[in-house]
Amino acid sequence: MRDRKGIKMGNKLNKKPVNGMKDVLPREMAIRSWCMKIIRENYKSYGFTEIETPCVESIENLCSKQGGENEKLIFKIMKRGEKLTSAMEAEGTKQENDFADSGLRYDLTLPLSRYYANHANELPAPFKALQIGSVFRAERPQKGRFRQFTQCDIDILGEPSNLAEIELILATTSTLRKLGFANFKVRINERRILRAMAAYSGFEEERFDSVYIILDKMDKIGREGVCEELLANEFAKEAVDRYMALFEGMQNTEDPFGYLKQTLGETLEEGVCESLAQIREAVLAAGQEGFEIVFDPTLVRGMGYYTGTIFEVEMADFGSSVAGGGRYDKMVGRFTGNDTPACGFSIGFERIITILLEQDFRIPGEQQKVAFLLEKGLPTDKLAEAIAGAQEKRNEGCQVLMVRMNKNKKFQKQQLEAEGYEEFVEFYREALKQ
Amino acid sequence: MRDRKGIKMGNKLNKKPVNGMKDVLPREMAIRSWCMKIIRENYKSYGFTEIETPCVESIENLCSKQGGENEKLIFKIMKRGEKLTSAMEAEGTKQENDFADSGLRYDLTLPLSRYYANHANELPAPFKALQIGSVFRAERPQKGRFRQFTQCDIDILGEPSNLAEIELILATTSTLRKLGFANFKVRINERRILRAMAAYSGFEEERFDSVYIILDKMDKIGREGVCEELLANEFAKEAVDRYMALFEGMQNTEDPFGYLKQTLGETLEEGVCESLAQIREAVLAAGQEGFEIVFDPTLVRGMGYYTGTIFEVEMADFGSSVAGGGRYDKMVGRFTGNDTPACGFSIGFERIITILLEQDFRIPGEQQKVAFLLEKGLPTDKLAEAIAGAQEKRNEGCQVLMVRMNKNKKFQKQQLEAEGYEEFVEFYREALKQ
Repeated sequence: MRDRKGIKMGNKLNKKPVNGMKDVLPREMAIRSWCMKIIRENYKSYGFTEIETPCVESIENLCSKQGGENEKLIFKIMKRGEKLTSAMEAEGTKQENDFADSGLRYDLTLPLSRYYANHANELPAPFKALQIGSVFRAERPQKGRFRQFTQCDIDILGEPSNLAEIELILATTSTLRKLGFANFKVRINERRILRAMAAYSGFEEERFDSVYIILDKMDKIGREGVCEELLANEFAKEAVDRYMALFEGMQNTEDPFGYLKQTLGETLEEGVCESLAQIREAVLAAGQEGFEIVFDPTLVRGMGYYTGTIFEVEMADFGSSVAGGGRYDKMVGRFTGNDTPACGFSIGFERIITILLEQDFRIPGEQQKVAFLLEKGLPTDKLAEAIAGAQEKRNEGCQVLMVRMNKNKKFQKQQLEAEGYEEFVEFYREALKQ
Repeated sequence: MRDRKGIKMGNKLNKKPVNGMKDVLPREMAIRSWCMKIIRENYKSYGFTEIETPCVESIENLCSKQGGENEKLIFKIMKRGEKLTSAMEAEGTKQENDFADSGLRYDLTLPLSRYYANHANELPAPFKALQIGSVFRAERPQKGRFRQFTQCDIDILGEPSNLAEIELILATTSTLRKLGFANFKVRINERRILRAMAAYSGFEEERFDSVYIILDKMDKIGREGVCEELLANEFAKEAVDRYMALFEGMQNTEDPFGYLKQTLGETLEEGVCESLAQIREAVLAAGQEGFEIVFDPTLVRGMGYYTGTIFEVEMADFGSSVAGGGRYDKMVGRFTGNDTPACGFSIGFERIITILLEQDFRIPGEQQKVAFLLEKGLPTDKLAEAIAGAQEKRNEGCQVLMVRMNKNKKFQKQQLEAEGYEEFVEFYREALKQ
């Protein structure tokens, strides 16, 4: 049965979250909150200031080709009132975007660039931003991937030098360390090296992105696999051979930067290799234990907006990448007409949470938990006594739950013990019953 | 110019947030973050556990008449893929909801009820929930009101007794106190008293809600104003007179509960007044300074889902209400078929932030801020020295900004001082230049 508005009627509402999104249960939420607290504190000590942007952006900004594949996954929000009515009544074939005026953001980078463009005059220069927020992608639902998830980004805007990269890498790895992780491997590359290598090999510029997408699989399918896939995609054999020779050459030298500069010559912009080398040395100089930073000419990073350095952090103990980022010097210019240097690093927040949940992680320094059990029908003076006692415990730093005593008190206490309650205080209607 | 998808093309993207939503600048964000931290800590000490629900709910749940006027303000999300195509290609007149399958939540109470219905077996009983999150309402944009804003709710589910109300009032007022506020006046009433008074007066049950809406204006237009407006809305003079006599009677007695019980007789459920009186006494027994709790028979609270106690907190220094809530024992039952006692309290988070911003609030116990100024082109060894120095300061608990030295160093320092940086450390290419 449907009512006038076309909504299904029934006795019961639907108690499941919408398809692909999730309810966060207390245990996971405690870990999420703790992680956010640590992340905020540590990034703050690096001079990052937190900001917030709306979850909703205009449809024009979201569909501006800054988001690559993510633009296919936008949750679009319908126009309202007059605008919707006239869109619905208009003659002719209708397009999806005739009905939508905005949508849910698919990342935090586009909103940050808009924010910076809008407020640059009110912000320090350079501006070091921290943003923790929900993003939304209408992906096919699958295990462990959700349509709403948290991103946690730091970005430095207005800093053209590699000081930005150095600070981002140090801030992010030290944050991961405070979250209890160790043994980091930072992989670093440069979009301008990727470009120079592809140009030198003789690929057509319009197809560079397709080359990168295949190159990105190197760690999975190896050099031979990449070679085969390039050929299968009808890239010229000569170009593929020259390309492969570059990777072989780099593998056979102790000085890959020297090799690249000598081989690529003027195709490679001056100073690119030197800057990468300096980032590496400066970051190592911070003297973190269990920390490695390597130049990886096969690192691609998916997003098309990167213009310079790109990097990822891996943790030896957990396989896949847990943080990544890079330089995107052209995005703010899409809003202002003037390019602004920008570089960002994003922690894989959901990946971190998954790892901590699997590890049966316990939050350090938790408060003592005390339960006050109150017999049913407690007279007001006894109730007042219990309340005063609870306030006192709270002032001492305890977490106090006041709860009615169940008939089966033993079972109730067992349940509370399972939730971490260690101390019980009982209040009865009559004093001596206890 | 428009491209194939109907999106306006242009050189520049739009740097403004979408209509009615806002970018949060660093100073406000720091206050928001600090408030959330205090709120989380204090509610936790009362045994509340934090949870999170998606920003998106199904259109059926959102339009289920639990949200009153807010249901007119839903941001609706379009169907995608096949479902959208077939909705667009279907014959006949189309309704708005033919194209939408979900929408942005307009409050946190409906999602909480759905969450509890979905997870009751995995949650403690009673369950004390804290939820801080964004909600969305497509209201006409106006000063100080935004279409995305933060709500901050605590709720106790599965507790039928007034222990829930007592805990909610104590937890919320003590939280407001930790945020630096004082002098609270809690107003408390009962939906069942409102109903009994309206029934006794002889209003028709179907029109009770209209009576309440007018009654709600008592503090603004006085008893005479309410009387006039009721008559203007064609309520029977006899009923209006009886109604007004009740309020007059309560004003002229020192024992309004006694008066109500005597006058309303069996129309008023037994125990209602006693429970309100006990809440009042128990809450006062906690002995908070500058704290008042009064029975206010004119308190209504907008939402239709309330079934029992309702309450609001006012702060003498700031006029309007800063927190409010009540009991809604029927909402979980809409999802499960079985009613579950539920009672909640919501802090007016945005109101609190506005007050703190207007007060020129300073966050207590801020870290010392140090700026490291690095001359351009610093050699790697000097850079490493600066990095090591910054790490050391951070370990000591300072907030350290590393930034390139501008040509106009004096101006740069002035700007940094304005941002709260008190100490400066300078690094030059050559040692003695300093």
